[in-house]
Amino acid sequence: MINHAITLYEDDHHKCLMFSDLVKGSGIQANQFMIVDRGRAAMIDPGGDLTFASLSIAIAKQASLDNVDFIFASHQDPDIIASLPKWIIKTPAKVVTSKLWSRFLPHLVPGYLTGQDGLNLDERMIALDDQGDVINLGQSKIVAVPAHFLHSVGNFQFFDMTSRILFSGDMGASLVDGSDMEPVEDFDSHVQSMAGFHRRYMTSNRACRLWARMVREMKVSMIVPQHGRPFKGEQMQQFLDWIENLECGVDLLTEQSYRPVYNVLQQAI
Amino acid sequence: MINHAITLYEDDHHKCLMFSDLVKGSGIQANQFMIVDRGRAAMIDPGGDLTFASLSIAIAKQASLDNVDFIFASHQDPDIIASLPKWIIKTPAKVVTSKLWSRFLPHLVPGYLTGQDGLNLDERMIALDDQGDVINLGQSKIVAVPAHFLHSVGNFQFFDMTSRILFSGDMGASLVDGSDMEPVEDFDSHVQSMAGFHRRYMTSNRACRLWARMVREMKVSMIVPQHGRPFKGEQMQQFLDWIENLECGVDLLTEQSYRPVYNVLQQAI
Repeated sequence: MINHAITLYEDDHHKCLMFSDLVKGSGIQANQFMIVDRGRAAMIDPGGDLTFASLSIAIAKQASLDNVDFIFASHQDPDIIASLPKWIIKTPAKVVTSKLWSRFLPHLVPGYLTGQDGLNLDERMIALDDQGDVINLGQSKIVAVPAHFLHSVGNFQFFDMTSRILFSGDMGASLVDGSDMEPVEDFDSHVQSMAGFHRRYMTSNRACRLWARMVREMKVSMIVPQHGRPFKGEQMQQFLDWIENLECGVDLLTEQSYRPVYNVLQQAI
Repeated sequence: MINHAITLYEDDHHKCLMFSDLVKGSGIQANQFMIVDRGRAAMIDPGGDLTFASLSIAIAKQASLDNVDFIFASHQDPDIIASLPKWIIKTPAKVVTSKLWSRFLPHLVPGYLTGQDGLNLDERMIALDDQGDVINLGQSKIVAVPAHFLHSVGNFQFFDMTSRILFSGDMGASLVDGSDMEPVEDFDSHVQSMAGFHRRYMTSNRACRLWARMVREMKVSMIVPQHGRPFKGEQMQQFLDWIENLECGVDLLTEQSYRPVYNVLQQAI
């Protein structure tokens, strides 16, 4: 099976690519992203060891590994960044992530590699304050936008100022058949592939509401999540309306949510 | 440097051990745990590749890797479970974790290992429903207790019914000098090593309050977090009082929390 790069945006100097069919076996479908500006490259949420080999082959068609300047990690999950040690070793890239995770990610790297042979992990991490930052890639700008608690407590989305694509991580993620990665066409029928995930994984309506308000001001051309299909135009507005009104996460907790299971099962222990 | 196992509990048939000094370099200090009951072993939150080699040497003194029946993973973070592929290969253990993460953890495992040589990841995962479950280890029982949103959206703590120790993951975690892992003696002075972490990483007071109420009913002998020092007796009660009243996470969000940084920096883009 040939791994296809889907072109989300392209002009003479700048390109945004999505890989959507690299996950095999029991791992959940996930999209990985690459931005190339004038020969300099960045990966967004490149994934875990499950997809590293096929992703590195796919991107070699676009840029040398020596030209990968940044790995953007929206948060700390395995499907986001567990391949970190391999990227650290095989590219000169710096890893851009929340300061909440910059001291946790080194746990991914085998002990025998750390502190050895000039591999200084601290120098390879760009730890973002909660407000985010603007990162220069080639002659373009990528903005780390706050999306904390959606779902991770320290969570960023990455906004490419050239294409105005918002790479939204788990926000807007849908669990769909991997064969169709075209933008959503019918929001009402698409909702069923998102609702369960967002209700359980997103932390609270308060965070969703404040996030949607921010995104409305950003002149976004497309919202591209890390799982499933992108949104643009009217469908994107419908997504923002929907998420703004979604009760989720801690909103749905009751006393019944926290009980030791031996009480639930009425099992004598 | 010799890695010491700290004995949290021991009787003729059952033992709870803590390893607290295995993290080197820039990774955050973390405790790993082992429970042995009549020769059968379980690991709790064994960590990432950073600590795998030293942890596997340390536990070999206690039980054969062939006798490791379970790996308990409170949530999906690198310092919790990124060593999963190695445990899967080197032991017959099943991995006990939230159903929210059982399809994400396979991303940790290299593609060339999955679906090969009888390695069936699905059969090695025990995916917990939100209410938790009771797991038999040897002749003892370990209860997976709900602690969702503290901090992970799908989060469990593990309660050893023999010792009545609650392995609380990030709840109660403190950032302390690794040399002193004795139970907390003076809560008021200890608070400063916990406050910043809990305010930012714990999701909401609502979750903290419901969790504390549950724990008070469980007759817990000791709360042992994954970072820093344990709590027991009066100090444990003080911790529960404190966390029950802590505003944290989404409670502290304002409109200022979600703004694209180019507005914050007033940078023309």
